[in-house]
Amino acid sequence: MIDAEPNRRPRVVVVGGGFAGLAVVRELADVAVDITIVDKNNFHLFQPLLYQVATGGLSPGDIAAPIRFVVAKQKNVSVRVAEVTGVDFDRRLVRLREDRELPYDYLVLAAGASSDYFGKDAWEEFAPSLKTINDALEMRTRILGAFEEAEWESDPEAQQGFLRFVVIGGGPTGVEMAGAVAEIAFGTLRKEYRNIDPALAEVHLVEMGPALLAGYPDDLQLRARQQLEDLGVRVRLGERVEAIDTHGIVMDGERLRTETVVWAAGVRAAELSDVLDTDRDRKGRIRVNADLSLPAQNDAFAIGDLAAFEEEGKVLPGIAPVAVQMGKHLGQTLRKEVLGNGARPGRKSRAEARPTFHYKDRGTMATIGRNRAVAMIGKHRFSGRLAWASWALIHLFFLIGFRNRLVVFVQWIWTYLTWQRNSRLVYRRPEEKRDDDQSDGV
Amino acid sequence: MIDAEPNRRPRVVVVGGGFAGLAVVRELADVAVDITIVDKNNFHLFQPLLYQVATGGLSPGDIAAPIRFVVAKQKNVSVRVAEVTGVDFDRRLVRLREDRELPYDYLVLAAGASSDYFGKDAWEEFAPSLKTINDALEMRTRILGAFEEAEWESDPEAQQGFLRFVVIGGGPTGVEMAGAVAEIAFGTLRKEYRNIDPALAEVHLVEMGPALLAGYPDDLQLRARQQLEDLGVRVRLGERVEAIDTHGIVMDGERLRTETVVWAAGVRAAELSDVLDTDRDRKGRIRVNADLSLPAQNDAFAIGDLAAFEEEGKVLPGIAPVAVQMGKHLGQTLRKEVLGNGARPGRKSRAEARPTFHYKDRGTMATIGRNRAVAMIGKHRFSGRLAWASWALIHLFFLIGFRNRLVVFVQWIWTYLTWQRNSRLVYRRPEEKRDDDQSDGV
Repeated sequence: MIDAEPNRRPRVVVVGGGFAGLAVVRELADVAVDITIVDKNNFHLFQPLLYQVATGGLSPGDIAAPIRFVVAKQKNVSVRVAEVTGVDFDRRLVRLREDRELPYDYLVLAAGASSDYFGKDAWEEFAPSLKTINDALEMRTRILGAFEEAEWESDPEAQQGFLRFVVIGGGPTGVEMAGAVAEIAFGTLRKEYRNIDPALAEVHLVEMGPALLAGYPDDLQLRARQQLEDLGVRVRLGERVEAIDTHGIVMDGERLRTETVVWAAGVRAAELSDVLDTDRDRKGRIRVNADLSLPAQNDAFAIGDLAAFEEEGKVLPGIAPVAVQMGKHLGQTLRKEVLGNGARPGRKSRAEARPTFHYKDRGTMATIGRNRAVAMIGKHRFSGRLAWASWALIHLFFLIGFRNRLVVFVQWIWTYLTWQRNSRLVYRRPEEKRDDDQSDGV
Repeated sequence: MIDAEPNRRPRVVVVGGGFAGLAVVRELADVAVDITIVDKNNFHLFQPLLYQVATGGLSPGDIAAPIRFVVAKQKNVSVRVAEVTGVDFDRRLVRLREDRELPYDYLVLAAGASSDYFGKDAWEEFAPSLKTINDALEMRTRILGAFEEAEWESDPEAQQGFLRFVVIGGGPTGVEMAGAVAEIAFGTLRKEYRNIDPALAEVHLVEMGPALLAGYPDDLQLRARQQLEDLGVRVRLGERVEAIDTHGIVMDGERLRTETVVWAAGVRAAELSDVLDTDRDRKGRIRVNADLSLPAQNDAFAIGDLAAFEEEGKVLPGIAPVAVQMGKHLGQTLRKEVLGNGARPGRKSRAEARPTFHYKDRGTMATIGRNRAVAMIGKHRFSGRLAWASWALIHLFFLIGFRNRLVVFVQWIWTYLTWQRNSRLVYRRPEEKRDDDQSDGV
């Protein structure tokens, strides 16, 4: 292949400014490449704390930082806020909305994940999930709005429906959400209503499988359950959700009246993967080679939640540490390749020589609430206050951008001391919410 | 009038949880009344800092606090999140959406202000104003989005259009907005773009009158102008806006290409006043007696931005100190009246005995940017760093709720030291924005 511009620096296009994408970019900091980060949002989102925005503990600005700010000092990076509509692998072009396109020499797909309703897409309306800031603000509106409606309601059964919250899915997100909703009802709001007693709220955590936190050791699963029950959460294991509508949910034939259902039962690859001509697994994740490249594309890669990377017969989970390690590994690979090629793009890459990715599991943790968490670091297992303190410290440490870290720290201390959650503002499209409500009667 | 429930405590309904409404509520803290605050939002908004949310300096949660939280300890208050659709003065009922209603013995109308387009309502679409959190997030989207579009644009003239910002109105809000946009363009974003130089941005501040900050002494008006011009703002006095559309603005016959126009030219009473059967002034504000009661309603009052209270031949301006003083005065009036009546509602109030409201002007200030402000306290006039420091301190002090104060303080220090604005997240309805853009071609 003869390049029309022999002295051009290789172009690296990174789709997605999440953990994985930014890790690649950082590894290429002092390499003579032109990097473009494309993201439909102008910010990097610290997704592990999104549930705190949904439950009014933090503001959107506390858990996100403008991508431009994060990479401002890295001169070989430009940022484009745009939506990717497809990739032309043959012509090496990323297609964007409004007929824009970006040429690449190396393409990094790191667009993340979306929620999986397992074919029951109609449930999304009644049981929203938690992937974006708008999701979180919508959920905040619903949870706090339910208490407001309960305060008005005179019919006891309808009132209890507003005070009943159902979280579907016993993974880390479900556990976090159930814990946080319980803390709001039984702690934060305790003294704020006159007609209702928020302590009469019910928080149900529903998991189809036999235990919470699948994949964790038995004793931590049990500890998580105990800590949730201490908080007042009703943990329902082995129950299958059969139907969800505006005013209730049906599990194992039994109907439970509720106005607020949270979906935390499954994730799949971001929509982008649907339009790409490449091999994908059942969850839409892009299958990748040992070097993270696409099976038929030597210069295109998928990393993070978007990728299906098998190790010891299992696909690595969609968690931040996997994304960061994949990004670092790929960044180092590209770095060596570009330096080895004398920074000339278009020369055939040597995929056979690229190192294989290995995930190094440094531990996992899930938080449940104030002083309540479970953690597994190496062979050590913790729960309770120590696990919670570790969780808080590690999450603070990884929050990108000093200011976020400091502000979140101040707010956590404040929340810890006072039980207050002062980001309980509802400003997400109240009109739409109202319209939804009115059309419920059908 | 015979009351069916002779031992019932008087019911005070306060419409609006802003400065004025909350001040009334606080004065009645230990009085045997049942207070209901009705607000369409669940939060109190610290409006003087709204422009900081619009320009990415603060998060919504930093300048707002849940009303329930603010009044949680005051046992005689309940809160209803609802929209008022009218008042039946004869039956003493406040009507709400969804056919709900609230009976009152005393009614306090404190619903605030909305923007005034002086009959040119079509301009609102192209030149949004700044009254709500959603307004601020919309404006943030437009301002930051304009830089993103400029980064893509290859046509120099179109690019300059995206880099040209026009603020209409030379009052405090216009001055603040123009200063903040200039700081973003010439400071915050300086190193973040690759194709454009944000320093090529133009910020125009247009005022029809002969000076900025009408009502301020001449020397402060001049100092404000000088400080804005130091910041790089083009101050255009005596120019009349004749037309606004998606891609430009016409002033005195000259068309200026711009994609971002901010309306800060006028305010009028909140929409609520339109549906009330009471005397109003040209700006829709409710005319009130010397005791703040409505002319024909002895037990209904209007305060804050919603009220037209004349003193020395001029209607008091719609600023926070006026609202707070009106609220305090009315709260004290009601307190005496209820205590004097032996807490029996329904007994004829003695309006003739109520004290007259007087506004005590303790000073005014307007901020322009980092180290730039003008202030007038008693006979003392300041500008520059000292005025700015006073402004910052006073605003911090009045921010309701300790946590907000501390977080805002931390963020201001951070912004001051680094020039960064880390709440530059755009998450407000990107789909709608895009639709707007596409329909622009007409």
